[in-house]
Amino acid sequence: MPSEFDLIQRHFTRTAPNAVLGVGDDCALLQPGAGMQLAISTDTLVADVHFFADTDPHKLGWKSLAVNLSDLAAMGATPRWATLALTVPEVDDDWLAAFAGGVFRCADQYGVSLVGGDTTRGALSLTFTVIGEVPPNQALRRDGAQPDDEIWVSGTLGDAALALAVLQGRANLTTPDLATLAVRLHTPTPRVELGLALRGLASSAIDISDGLLADLGHILSRSGVGANIEYTQLPLGEIVHDYAAHPEFDACVLSGGDDYELCFTAPAAHHQALDDIATHLDLRLTCIGRIHAEPGLNVCNAQGQVLDIRCTGYDHFAA
Amino acid sequence: MPSEFDLIQRHFTRTAPNAVLGVGDDCALLQPGAGMQLAISTDTLVADVHFFADTDPHKLGWKSLAVNLSDLAAMGATPRWATLALTVPEVDDDWLAAFAGGVFRCADQYGVSLVGGDTTRGALSLTFTVIGEVPPNQALRRDGAQPDDEIWVSGTLGDAALALAVLQGRANLTTPDLATLAVRLHTPTPRVELGLALRGLASSAIDISDGLLADLGHILSRSGVGANIEYTQLPLGEIVHDYAAHPEFDACVLSGGDDYELCFTAPAAHHQALDDIATHLDLRLTCIGRIHAEPGLNVCNAQGQVLDIRCTGYDHFAA
Repeated sequence: MPSEFDLIQRHFTRTAPNAVLGVGDDCALLQPGAGMQLAISTDTLVADVHFFADTDPHKLGWKSLAVNLSDLAAMGATPRWATLALTVPEVDDDWLAAFAGGVFRCADQYGVSLVGGDTTRGALSLTFTVIGEVPPNQALRRDGAQPDDEIWVSGTLGDAALALAVLQGRANLTTPDLATLAVRLHTPTPRVELGLALRGLASSAIDISDGLLADLGHILSRSGVGANIEYTQLPLGEIVHDYAAHPEFDACVLSGGDDYELCFTAPAAHHQALDDIATHLDLRLTCIGRIHAEPGLNVCNAQGQVLDIRCTGYDHFAA
Repeated sequence: MPSEFDLIQRHFTRTAPNAVLGVGDDCALLQPGAGMQLAISTDTLVADVHFFADTDPHKLGWKSLAVNLSDLAAMGATPRWATLALTVPEVDDDWLAAFAGGVFRCADQYGVSLVGGDTTRGALSLTFTVIGEVPPNQALRRDGAQPDDEIWVSGTLGDAALALAVLQGRANLTTPDLATLAVRLHTPTPRVELGLALRGLASSAIDISDGLLADLGHILSRSGVGANIEYTQLPLGEIVHDYAAHPEFDACVLSGGDDYELCFTAPAAHHQALDDIATHLDLRLTCIGRIHAEPGLNVCNAQGQVLDIRCTGYDHFAA
């Protein structure tokens, strides 16, 4: 049976062009850019909580890094380095090779060097720590939203959540439609380019991992403001749009996790600049509402009347 | 039941003096010192693999951070920041409070700011990622050992392993002796000050987490050299010394993990400087052997004859 060190060596050791010293010592050594600040984030994915244990390992590798890069994107940071702590119940060489392949496909696409890690035996879980760089005072924080700022969302909402609802037997879709949405669930796209483009424009930003209402709620709470969002303005893909009459619809669109789109705020003066970014990046950006000074998050109809919609974000410890 | 966010907020959010922005956003923001390189390391501790699930949570908090700081020490880096990914089977407020207390006691002692984390539900495990700073070209790497360098070890060997052997029923000790050694097992001291003092003196370094032979073996392998170490020179505490006739003795001293002492090499010209460091830090430093050009790691008697001792380091995936 190969040793732990052989495993790490074989599957996870590649040249790390961003690093002074990569995998194989007590620590990796990194040289940050002169004067740059570092943005750092850690996320764990646990089997049977955050993903099915039989998930395709290549896709799992992609997703587990991508969701962490999404945090860097939400900060406006350039992804640079990552470490991986991988806990596996057994040594399955094929699984490890496929998983590492997915990790490196994502890492290569976003210019990230995997500079260290740990492999342990136990219940399957994955923890990435990612580090990016951002010039001082240019990070997109959660606490900068101001009254009268517009609220924007990238891409479309509810795709990943509807796919999950189907996979869990709570909804039905045709096989091709499920395949389309499953891409959003299993191989999400971290909005890195958008995060970089929003430097100097957005007053706050967050990535939508726990659902629009929960994540926008974090911006409101940290910024000490409230918001109205307009139900009919929420950006939907065709498949989710066609699902509007289903009881799962509101939950998917307003509280569905795993979309990893960015929700951000910006002064109305930047509206045209943001439309231009959408064109340039070929990425839908939709203004869905406005910040106001009074606390509270209201979902309104087109006439501005508050709708009685109750959903909350995903909570790992909720009953 | 409190939400995930409440939990994190309550137990793990403290002021982070080393950070531009601490816990509570998509990422933390850090400002590295001008020109400094970063040393980064990740380690996971899994319940029932690396520690007993019923371990005192305060001690576990200390140890789980301390073993990561030990990697920074082995690199000669100044500890600065840490993130924690914590997976717990249930929300146990008392446990979390005690665990966080242990983490922060260690963090405060070594000047580390906890700048981020993730709390998830699942089988109990803890992953710390730690970051330290080191001036360019001063890091203590594993690949710098040269023929004729002396090999040194800090502190004493086998203490933690003997405590573990007793707790697992493979050896016996009096209650006071077990209590003495259990401190070494449960609340190890990362040799941070020693690592800093070794900058410019040591040609290579590693921390002893998997046993002397395995960890010194990593230095030899990365440096492309071999070594002779002298069995009678291995530094032992009184309790382990008195255990010399026991069948577990060699395994504890040569292959026992969890001591978190430093093993390092240095040119013989630095022998006196290292003795002076030992005095200054009030920490035993023992020269146990010498590097040679031929591959292989030999344990020799006082006459230089190679002893037939077969032990290997701890391997999480060994049969």
